[in-house]
Amino acid sequence: MGKKRTNKYKKHIKLTPGSVVYTGDNPTEKLFINTYDYSPDFVKQLELKSVEEAFTFKNTKSNSWININGLNHIKDIECIGKHYNLHPLIIADIANTSQRPKIDVYDDYIFVVLKMLYYDTEENIKIEQISLVLGSNYVLSFQEIEGDVFDNIRDRLQLENGRIRNLGADYLFYALIDAIVDHYYIVSETMGNKIEDLEDLLFDGNVKEDLSHQVLNLKKEVLKIRRAIFPIREIISRIEKNEHVLIDHKSIQYFRDIYDHVIQLSDTIDIYREMVWSLMDMYMTTISNKMNEVMKVLTIMATIFIPLTFIAGIYGMNFDYIPELHYKYSYFILWVVMVVIFLGMIYYFKRKKWL
Amino acid sequence: MGKKRTNKYKKHIKLTPGSVVYTGDNPTEKLFINTYDYSPDFVKQLELKSVEEAFTFKNTKSNSWININGLNHIKDIECIGKHYNLHPLIIADIANTSQRPKIDVYDDYIFVVLKMLYYDTEENIKIEQISLVLGSNYVLSFQEIEGDVFDNIRDRLQLENGRIRNLGADYLFYALIDAIVDHYYIVSETMGNKIEDLEDLLFDGNVKEDLSHQVLNLKKEVLKIRRAIFPIREIISRIEKNEHVLIDHKSIQYFRDIYDHVIQLSDTIDIYREMVWSLMDMYMTTISNKMNEVMKVLTIMATIFIPLTFIAGIYGMNFDYIPELHYKYSYFILWVVMVVIFLGMIYYFKRKKWL
Amino acid sequence: MGKKRTNKYKKHIKLTPGSVVYTGDNPTEKLFINTYDYSPDFVKQLELKSVEEAFTFKNTKSNSWININGLNHIKDIECIGKHYNLHPLIIADIANTSQRPKIDVYDDYIFVVLKMLYYDTEENIKIEQISLVLGSNYVLSFQEIEGDVFDNIRDRLQLENGRIRNLGADYLFYALIDAIVDHYYIVSETMGNKIEDLEDLLFDGNVKEDLSHQVLNLKKEVLKIRRAIFPIREIISRIEKNEHVLIDHKSIQYFRDIYDHVIQLSDTIDIYREMVWSLMDMYMTTISNKMNEVMKVLTIMATIFIPLTFIAGIYGMNFDYIPELHYKYSYFILWVVMVVIFLGMIYYFKRKKWL
Amino acid sequence: MGKKRTNKYKKHIKLTPGSVVYTGDNPTEKLFINTYDYSPDFVKQLELKSVEEAFTFKNTKSNSWININGLNHIKDIECIGKHYNLHPLIIADIANTSQRPKIDVYDDYIFVVLKMLYYDTEENIKIEQISLVLGSNYVLSFQEIEGDVFDNIRDRLQLENGRIRNLGADYLFYALIDAIVDHYYIVSETMGNKIEDLEDLLFDGNVKEDLSHQVLNLKKEVLKIRRAIFPIREIISRIEKNEHVLIDHKSIQYFRDIYDHVIQLSDTIDIYREMVWSLMDMYMTTISNKMNEVMKVLTIMATIFIPLTFIAGIYGMNFDYIPELHYKYSYFILWVVMVVIFLGMIYYFKRKKWL
Amino acid sequence: MGKKRTNKYKKHIKLTPGSVVYTGDNPTEKLFINTYDYSPDFVKQLELKSVEEAFTFKNTKSNSWININGLNHIKDIECIGKHYNLHPLIIADIANTSQRPKIDVYDDYIFVVLKMLYYDTEENIKIEQISLVLGSNYVLSFQEIEGDVFDNIRDRLQLENGRIRNLGADYLFYALIDAIVDHYYIVSETMGNKIEDLEDLLFDGNVKEDLSHQVLNLKKEVLKIRRAIFPIREIISRIEKNEHVLIDHKSIQYFRDIYDHVIQLSDTIDIYREMVWSLMDMYMTTISNKMNEVMKVLTIMATIFIPLTFIAGIYGMNFDYIPELHYKYSYFILWVVMVVIFLGMIYYFKRKKWL
Repeated sequence: MGKKRTNKYKKHIKLTPGSVVYTGDNPTEKLFINTYDYSPDFVKQLELKSVEEAFTFKNTKSNSWININGLNHIKDIECIGKHYNLHPLIIADIANTSQRPKIDVYDDYIFVVLKMLYYDTEENIKIEQISLVLGSNYVLSFQEIEGDVFDNIRDRLQLENGRIRNLGADYLFYALIDAIVDHYYIVSETMGNKIEDLEDLLFDGNVKEDLSHQVLNLKKEVLKIRRAIFPIREIISRIEKNEHVLIDHKSIQYFRDIYDHVIQLSDTIDIYREMVWSLMDMYMTTISNKMNEVMKVLTIMATIFIPLTFIAGIYGMNFDYIPELHYKYSYFILWVVMVVIFLGMIYYFKRKKWL
Repeated sequence: MGKKRTNKYKKHIKLTPGSVVYTGDNPTEKLFINTYDYSPDFVKQLELKSVEEAFTFKNTKSNSWININGLNHIKDIECIGKHYNLHPLIIADIANTSQRPKIDVYDDYIFVVLKMLYYDTEENIKIEQISLVLGSNYVLSFQEIEGDVFDNIRDRLQLENGRIRNLGADYLFYALIDAIVDHYYIVSETMGNKIEDLEDLLFDGNVKEDLSHQVLNLKKEVLKIRRAIFPIREIISRIEKNEHVLIDHKSIQYFRDIYDHVIQLSDTIDIYREMVWSLMDMYMTTISNKMNEVMKVLTIMATIFIPLTFIAGIYGMNFDYIPELHYKYSYFILWVVMVVIFLGMIYYFKRKKWL
Repeated sequence: MGKKRTNKYKKHIKLTPGSVVYTGDNPTEKLFINTYDYSPDFVKQLELKSVEEAFTFKNTKSNSWININGLNHIKDIECIGKHYNLHPLIIADIANTSQRPKIDVYDDYIFVVLKMLYYDTEENIKIEQISLVLGSNYVLSFQEIEGDVFDNIRDRLQLENGRIRNLGADYLFYALIDAIVDHYYIVSETMGNKIEDLEDLLFDGNVKEDLSHQVLNLKKEVLKIRRAIFPIREIISRIEKNEHVLIDHKSIQYFRDIYDHVIQLSDTIDIYREMVWSLMDMYMTTISNKMNEVMKVLTIMATIFIPLTFIAGIYGMNFDYIPELHYKYSYFILWVVMVVIFLGMIYYFKRKKWL
Repeated sequence: MGKKRTNKYKKHIKLTPGSVVYTGDNPTEKLFINTYDYSPDFVKQLELKSVEEAFTFKNTKSNSWININGLNHIKDIECIGKHYNLHPLIIADIANTSQRPKIDVYDDYIFVVLKMLYYDTEENIKIEQISLVLGSNYVLSFQEIEGDVFDNIRDRLQLENGRIRNLGADYLFYALIDAIVDHYYIVSETMGNKIEDLEDLLFDGNVKEDLSHQVLNLKKEVLKIRRAIFPIREIISRIEKNEHVLIDHKSIQYFRDIYDHVIQLSDTIDIYREMVWSLMDMYMTTISNKMNEVMKVLTIMATIFIPLTFIAGIYGMNFDYIPELHYKYSYFILWVVMVVIFLGMIYYFKRKKWL
Repeated sequence: MGKKRTNKYKKHIKLTPGSVVYTGDNPTEKLFINTYDYSPDFVKQLELKSVEEAFTFKNTKSNSWININGLNHIKDIECIGKHYNLHPLIIADIANTSQRPKIDVYDDYIFVVLKMLYYDTEENIKIEQISLVLGSNYVLSFQEIEGDVFDNIRDRLQLENGRIRNLGADYLFYALIDAIVDHYYIVSETMGNKIEDLEDLLFDGNVKEDLSHQVLNLKKEVLKIRRAIFPIREIISRIEKNEHVLIDHKSIQYFRDIYDHVIQLSDTIDIYREMVWSLMDMYMTTISNKMNEVMKVLTIMATIFIPLTFIAGIYGMNFDYIPELHYKYSYFILWVVMVVIFLGMIYYFKRKKWL
């Protein structure tokens, strides 16, 4: 993975700055464009066959949501971008999937990059970039691959008297961001469960494998999630403060609600961070405790039997003249002596609380 | 617990953003509404049977405190919220018990979310969310379950010439927050005692169980308490700075007093945090010290007896020609040699300060 | 100590917020009031018998210092407070000895809470709260017990042409704070010496007791001192910025001087903090180093004698047919072999730098 | 390396402050000046033979890029500097290669110091200083040695209808900075790969060498890179805020793009930092785990055989009267006893999960 | 050292606040005053015999540098201070050598306290306080002992057409600060070399002494240097922002240059700090690695020979009936068995990578 990435960047830097390059790992075969055109009276869902069909939504009286999947189709994305007057650097940002969450405010549109987070079936964290453009009566969304967290919004768009149908494009824009942020809660909880599972594992004496690798991987995950979530605080507070003409004064309250959620998530992530950092220390003491136990067993056994074996060795010597050897009760006396030593040792270890 | 929580969030995100969902774990069978209607002249305590009875307090000349228990009765809460003109997002916040402490300032009311902290009988920290709404002549309080820290306030409301009866709803609002914050001191002290108890345990050589789990749990507790207390600083300072028409200029001094308390608590919590973090290190050195002791015992025993046993082994050999074996005093000389070696070893260890 | 404190707080929260409760551990039998009335021309020192005598100093032309000892005499303190128009919350703060250092600025007086630090005879850090109120022509000081750091100021008040006699109450106020801060230097130095002493102890191989407890206690002390000193920076800078009518423009320079001292002390305390934190790590490596030494001794002894003992064991066997046993020089040859093995081992350990 | 550097500084401080001294380690034999003179219509590349030839570009209508290699040729650099009205301190900064990345904004030019980072063939991080001066129609760049990251820009200058040819010197200035920052991505990725490689190595049980040195070296590298990249954030934001006449309003967007990149890089570097810091802890637990395994083997072997050897020693004693010795089945019974003890031990260790 | 310092402070606090007390450890026998009087046309160096001779420089048209050595001559310093209108607190600061670096800006002079750092011949860090006062046409400098870092400035004052002679007292003021800061580079480099030396030592297996003490001492040194250098950033930025009449607008650029240097030094010191902090961890892993090696040797030796010795013990028993004893080839077969066991063990350890 390392080498490949390096090449990717090496290729990238050969080009004009601001040139549009797809840097993701998930090219799709064809561009997939799905649109919702809606007003309080009607809603029309369409799957577009060509990019050009997407041009009509710019100057309608209804609101529209144009969702584009497949960031490797650079030509088409540039084409849409030009029609909607997007700055070339923004088109480059859309295609560059290693973008940091950010906001760019222009006179006639607002551009936001966010990260969708989810765990795949093997519980590895996945990060997908999503770019949103809010115009006067439309929202463009650019995703790398199909599948997202917006199914709920699609359902609500079908409901005649739902808030989303009756309010402007800025509410749709809010609803999309809110759906992404809401999904972070699931990620955050899964992360919490993983931490607790690992914690249990670390205390379980039966585990033989080295768990420090798993702690390290959890650290990486926490850092990745942190990095996806933390910049959103700044994004939302810029939306709040900017008083941009595209965002209705009443909608601000909704963005503030997202802000509260993000702060809460940040708090949780920071606590996870502290917990994961502590796990390594805890693991270390657990290992040391186990070693202590091992050493005690060895020490007790050795300390008891080493002197006894020495005594047996003494009377195994072949000197011609060892008076004890010939006394009839020597052997029995010796056993008594050995049992006394043995019991003395046991008592000593008991008092030391080693037994 | 992990899996369940995940489901909870998964269910939640299927809904409209801002929809009111109870996310706590303690549903109550029926909604319980308790009201105090008071003015300098009179006080009237009532337990309401229906939500509609709570509507009358909005436009009286007296002050009122309407305390609602049972956040799972969403319909009723929405009903009250609508009557008192609360923003839909606020009603959602009341029901969502995983809210972070926060303040929302509206033109005609102030909304505050706080956490009540207490230790249950098994010394586990419990966190209950409480939402307060201050209107012109009323305070609404929303709690998850019955039982709170306000008994003292209830008593004082009965006293004819108490300050609380003679001042406005803003003073009641202050008194409720103050009661919550005052209760943090008990939690903080219990926490302090738990830390000291664990500290004693860590130094006690007799303890055989692995205590790192307990240190970790204390860490979690400190982080939870921190998270409940720290945001209050911002809440209070926003009340102070805002000069809201609902809060009398004279009352500001009282809120500043709470602010001082919260700062002091934050300091204490931070010191606890540092102490708990240090406990793990300390535990580690304690374990290592014990292992050192164990190793010394083993080393001393082995070092003394291994050479002696070797000597005994030598004269246990069956060679036909070992001249020493036949000398009459060999055995006694050998004993002398062994005692000299033994004493030499003891002297060596004494000098090394191992004995 | 733990349980008692908990009770104290539990009792406390039963009362009206802002009610005056003594929370210290050092009640005195009787209230002790000592006053200095002075102007450039005269100075009069008095020990008052009743609280009422203290009332006269409010409206004199001379300056006065009224020093009150014994915070458990709540009635008397409330009495003085009322006469001097102190806000009820301030009187509560005076009696509550677990207050954090802070400043409250009112129109006609400035209220400051500070901590006096000193080491008792057993080198335990002691913290005593002192509250100061600066009025137009008087300074009130409230202490828990007799004995303070102001003897120097008392002496200087007796000197006719001293600065303190010729300047206003604000200079006396400064002088009192300065005396407290100056005393921190002694505490800081004692702390420094204690750290160095512990450091020496940690490196001393002879110490057998577990020193991690002492490191932990030093940590606690540093945190306590930090907590007493750090808030003063904010107090002084608020005095500087406020341009309060009670504080002459010329005196500001003096407060800035205190500020410099407090910053310097904070720096020192932070360095102590880093040092104490490092001591635990250092202790850990010291322990490990010692264990290494122990293990080396064991390993060297065992590694040398285990094979030799094995050889001796071989020729102690009773097989009928062991040819070597009957050869005349076997025994001597065996000794040679053993010495060679012994020397080989010694050489091996020398090369490994274990010897 | 240490001693030499010390001397370098010692020499340096003997001189006038602000005197021009080359402090790098890579003197070149001759100064090498390469210029591009370009306008939308034409481009002319020249290698200059003398410094004086570089003077003509100041007052042309076309834009120019004058690239100077060889900072040890102080006289020449001072000569150019004087001609282009550079402040003496700036000329000193150009020659002092241990400069921190910084920006100095003057009325008629902007001066920026940056660091080019690259890994040499032995994967050691190399840092080369580059100074850029943006004038009204020219950019001066000063490098220590030949070879840089600008080949792409040189190619683009040759393209007739490229953006770089059609925009002003400020765009060239941007393009140079952008090329440097873009190159950081390669460094950052290589660093990432090195961390992952070391991580794998740390977990590999086969490695015998002490890897803590490598962790420490990675730490140093991360700190060096951090130090080169972090100050750029401030540089770019000063360019953005300053609204300098030399930088066209439209170009600001491009600098903002660099800013985003630098923030993203900073995030990555900080994550690397946390990872590398964690590696040491992880290594420590890995070592301890291995030691645990070693100790278990020893303890199991010793605990099993020590009592058995003791029993054998008992019956090797030469007492005249040991009744068991003469019973016919003693030897077989003894074997049974020993096997039972052996199996008991194995069972015990199995239950303890040591086997 | 501890006790003495305590006494010093104890004495100090007996005095009026702001009273002038020398707190250093290096009293000189006599006050030593050296002056330079200079203008573009002339320079005159003088060693003054009495304090009064220093008074004349205040009202000349030429610029002057009055350098005073020997802070224990408090009377003389007070005398100069009074003549030059210095505030009493400033005179106290000059004599108190434990001052933190700081700036005090007055209407007619600027007062700066700095620290000169150098390593003595035994490589211990030494800190000497220097106080500078910039007046309209003079600079006063107060040093504790003779010997400083200003020789270069003295030389340049002799040069007729040097910048220092032609510019005002503010440039001299700058030059003195610059010389002090420049000298920090030498200290910083020496520190860097010491860290690298210790690093090498920590990895060297041959070192037997406990090195944690040395790591701790390096920590202390880094903290001391940090404390001397870091406050200068604030000092310089206050000079920059203040636009004081004493400091010419053109000179600001020079102070900004010092600022850049101090920032760079701070960066370096912070990296040193991180490195030294890491050394302890690294040392710990190094120790553990060594212990691992020791334990492996012990375990291998014990594991191989313990079972072999047991076997030899078996056949050393004196049972009347041990059939193997009488079989002719038993002894040879036993040797074969033992060699097989031996080789099996070796193979086992090889596979475990312990050999």
